[in-house]
Amino acid sequence: MRIAIFAAVLSLLVTACGQEQATSTAGQHPQQTVKWKLVTSWPKNFPGLGTSPERFAEQVNAMSGGRLEIKVYGANQLVPAMQVFDSVSSGTVEMGHSGAYYWKGKAPAAQFFCAVPFGMTAQEMSSWLHYGGGMELWREVYAPFNLEPLAGGSTGVQMGGWFNTEINSVDDLKGLKMRLPGLGGEVLSRLGGVPVSLPGGEIFTSLQTGAIDATEWVGPYNDLAFGLHEAAKYYYYPGWHEPGSTMEFIVNKDAMAALPADLQAIVRTAAKAAAQEMIDEYTYRNIAALEQIQAMDGITIKRFPEPVLAALRQASEQLLAEQAAADPQVDKVYQSFKSFKQGVAKYHDLTERAYLNLRDGQ
Amino acid sequence: MRIAIFAAVLSLLVTACGQEQATSTAGQHPQQTVKWKLVTSWPKNFPGLGTSPERFAEQVNAMSGGRLEIKVYGANQLVPAMQVFDSVSSGTVEMGHSGAYYWKGKAPAAQFFCAVPFGMTAQEMSSWLHYGGGMELWREVYAPFNLEPLAGGSTGVQMGGWFNTEINSVDDLKGLKMRLPGLGGEVLSRLGGVPVSLPGGEIFTSLQTGAIDATEWVGPYNDLAFGLHEAAKYYYYPGWHEPGSTMEFIVNKDAMAALPADLQAIVRTAAKAAAQEMIDEYTYRNIAALEQIQAMDGITIKRFPEPVLAALRQASEQLLAEQAAADPQVDKVYQSFKSFKQGVAKYHDLTERAYLNLRDGQ
Repeated sequence: MRIAIFAAVLSLLVTACGQEQATSTAGQHPQQTVKWKLVTSWPKNFPGLGTSPERFAEQVNAMSGGRLEIKVYGANQLVPAMQVFDSVSSGTVEMGHSGAYYWKGKAPAAQFFCAVPFGMTAQEMSSWLHYGGGMELWREVYAPFNLEPLAGGSTGVQMGGWFNTEINSVDDLKGLKMRLPGLGGEVLSRLGGVPVSLPGGEIFTSLQTGAIDATEWVGPYNDLAFGLHEAAKYYYYPGWHEPGSTMEFIVNKDAMAALPADLQAIVRTAAKAAAQEMIDEYTYRNIAALEQIQAMDGITIKRFPEPVLAALRQASEQLLAEQAAADPQVDKVYQSFKSFKQGVAKYHDLTERAYLNLRDGQ
Repeated sequence: MRIAIFAAVLSLLVTACGQEQATSTAGQHPQQTVKWKLVTSWPKNFPGLGTSPERFAEQVNAMSGGRLEIKVYGANQLVPAMQVFDSVSSGTVEMGHSGAYYWKGKAPAAQFFCAVPFGMTAQEMSSWLHYGGGMELWREVYAPFNLEPLAGGSTGVQMGGWFNTEINSVDDLKGLKMRLPGLGGEVLSRLGGVPVSLPGGEIFTSLQTGAIDATEWVGPYNDLAFGLHEAAKYYYYPGWHEPGSTMEFIVNKDAMAALPADLQAIVRTAAKAAAQEMIDEYTYRNIAALEQIQAMDGITIKRFPEPVLAALRQASEQLLAEQAAADPQVDKVYQSFKSFKQGVAKYHDLTERAYLNLRDGQ
C-alpha cells in the first residue's frame, strides 16, 4: 500500500501555527489548553489508517481532561500527504501520522521502520521496536529532523495484490506493469517487471483500463472498499512485500518539549494504545471482508508459486544487502533488524508458527 | 502456567482501605491525589507477568501528574494470589492484575478470556476482545462481581512443557503425572493422564524428585528462570493448552466511578498500552532464553507427535462443548469465541500463517 492522494485539487491551507494556548474555564481546576494539529498521509477518516489517529486524538483529549486538544487533518486538508514529514519537522504542525517508508529520500534507513520485503510481522516489529533496540535507532535516524517517532499501528500481513494475469512462473513477471511502490517495486524491477507508482485514487481506473496489469493495496478490508475486485480476476497471497507494515506518529521535538511532563506521557502512551487498536481493527475487519471476497463469482484467490516467491526473496535479500553496503546508517539499522528477525523466526518456529500450523494446517 | 504462590508463610496484611485522598501541594495546580492499591497473583516484580502492572502504575502516575498513585503488591504481600478477584470485587482494594481462568469457580465463562486449549493467539485474542465482542461479554460476566475487566497482556503461544519421559503415543499419556492446571489438565485427564495442581514454588522440586513426570510453566524466559532445564530432559512444543494466555486488569466499579473522567480514561488507556508491552517483552526475552536452552547439552526439544496432538484436540473440543451445554453463559461466550476463531483462522491462513511458512518454512 502506498499513499493515496485522493482529492484531485484541494486548496493548501497551510497556516503558520505555533502552539495555540487558551485558558479553559470548565472544571474545578482551570488549566491552560494546548492545541495541536496532527496531519496525516491518509484521506480524512480513511478506514483503518485514518481512523487510528482520530481515536488517538480522542484518547489524548479524554486523558488530559481537555488540556491537550489535537485536531486531525486528512491528506491535503492542511498539507499534502507527502509533506507530513517536512511539516512536522519544521514545526508548521506539531504532529503527524504516516508511514516511515515514504521518507526514504530523506533518510534511506527509515523504510526499515515501516515495511521490508520478507521482513517481520506486526507482533515481531513491535517487539523489535520496543525491546530489541528498534526505537533507539528510529530516534537516531529522525533526530536530525527534530522529530520524535512513535510506533503508530500495523496493518498486519498484507495481501499480494490483484492481478489480471496469472503468475505461473518467474517469466510471467517480465513486463508486468504493477503498482508496487517502495522496496517491493524495486524487487519486481529486478525480475523484469515494471513497477508503477500511482496514488490510491487512480488505481482502480488504471487496473480497469489495462494501464496496469496488477496492483497491491493493503488487505481485504481496504481492498474491498476500493472495489478492486471489480477490476481484476486473481487475488494473490501472501504479501511478501509488506509482511507487517508499521505506521508512525511523528512529533515535533520542540512541541513535545514544551508540554508538561504529564501531557508528554499521555501522548506517548496513547500512541502505544492506538497502535494496538489498529492491528485489532484490521484483524477484525479483514475477516469479514475476506469472507465476502471468497464468496464472489469470478474472483480466484491464489498463492504465488513457490519458484516465484523464491526469486522474489532472493532479489529482496540482494537489494537490502546492496542498500546496506552503500549507507552506514542503513547498514546499522539493517543489521539490528536482520538479527532480530533471525532470532524471532527461530522462536516463532516453536510457538506462533508451530501452533497456527497445528490448529489450521491440513 | 498457573499461579505461583511462592512465599510459604507470609502474613496477610489485608487492610480496609477505601480511596485515600490527600491534597498535593506540588505543581501549579493543586489537585487531589487518589491512592489505589493494585494486588496481583504474581510474586512482586515476577518477570513478565509482575513487571507489567509495575509499568502500568508508573505510566498512570506519569500521565496523571501524580494525581492517581497506584501501589502494586505481589502475591501474599497484601492478599494471597487466589484472593485477588474477591479483594477487588469487595472493594478491599481498587485494582488487580491476574488471569481470568483462576476464577472459573466463580464464573465458568471466565476462562475464555484467558486461555483455551486450541484457542486463539495473542493477536487474535486482542482483536476478538476489542472488536469482536469479547470485551462486552467479559464485562457481562464480571458485572455481578462489581468488576470492570481490562485486557492486561499476553504471554504469546506457550511451550508444551518439560518432560522426563518421552511422549511417543497417546498411550504414553496414561498415568502421566503432569502439573497442568485448568482446561488443559482436564483434557489430559480424559486421555488417562493425572493432572496435578502445584504452586510455582513447588514445581522444580516435584519434577526433580519424580513426584511429577512433567510440568508446563510459561515459555523459555520464565521456564529458564525457574531452572526447569535442570530437572527435565525433554522440552516439548507447541503449547496446545495455552496458545495466547491473556492476563487481566480488574477494577472495582465503585472505585472507577469515583474517579474523574480524565483519570478513568488514563486507567483504561494505560492498560491497553501495558498489554502491548507485555507481549513485546515476552517475545524479546523468549528469543534469548530459547537460544540458551537450545545450546544446552542434555536437553532435547521435541514436537508432540501428531496423533497425540490430534487426541488432545479432540478431547479439548469435547470438553468445551460439554461445558457450553451445561451453562448458558459459557455457551454464549463459547459461541462468540468459536465463531471469531474460525473466521480469523481463515484470514490468517492467507496472511500470518502463509507468510511465516513462506519466510521460515523448509
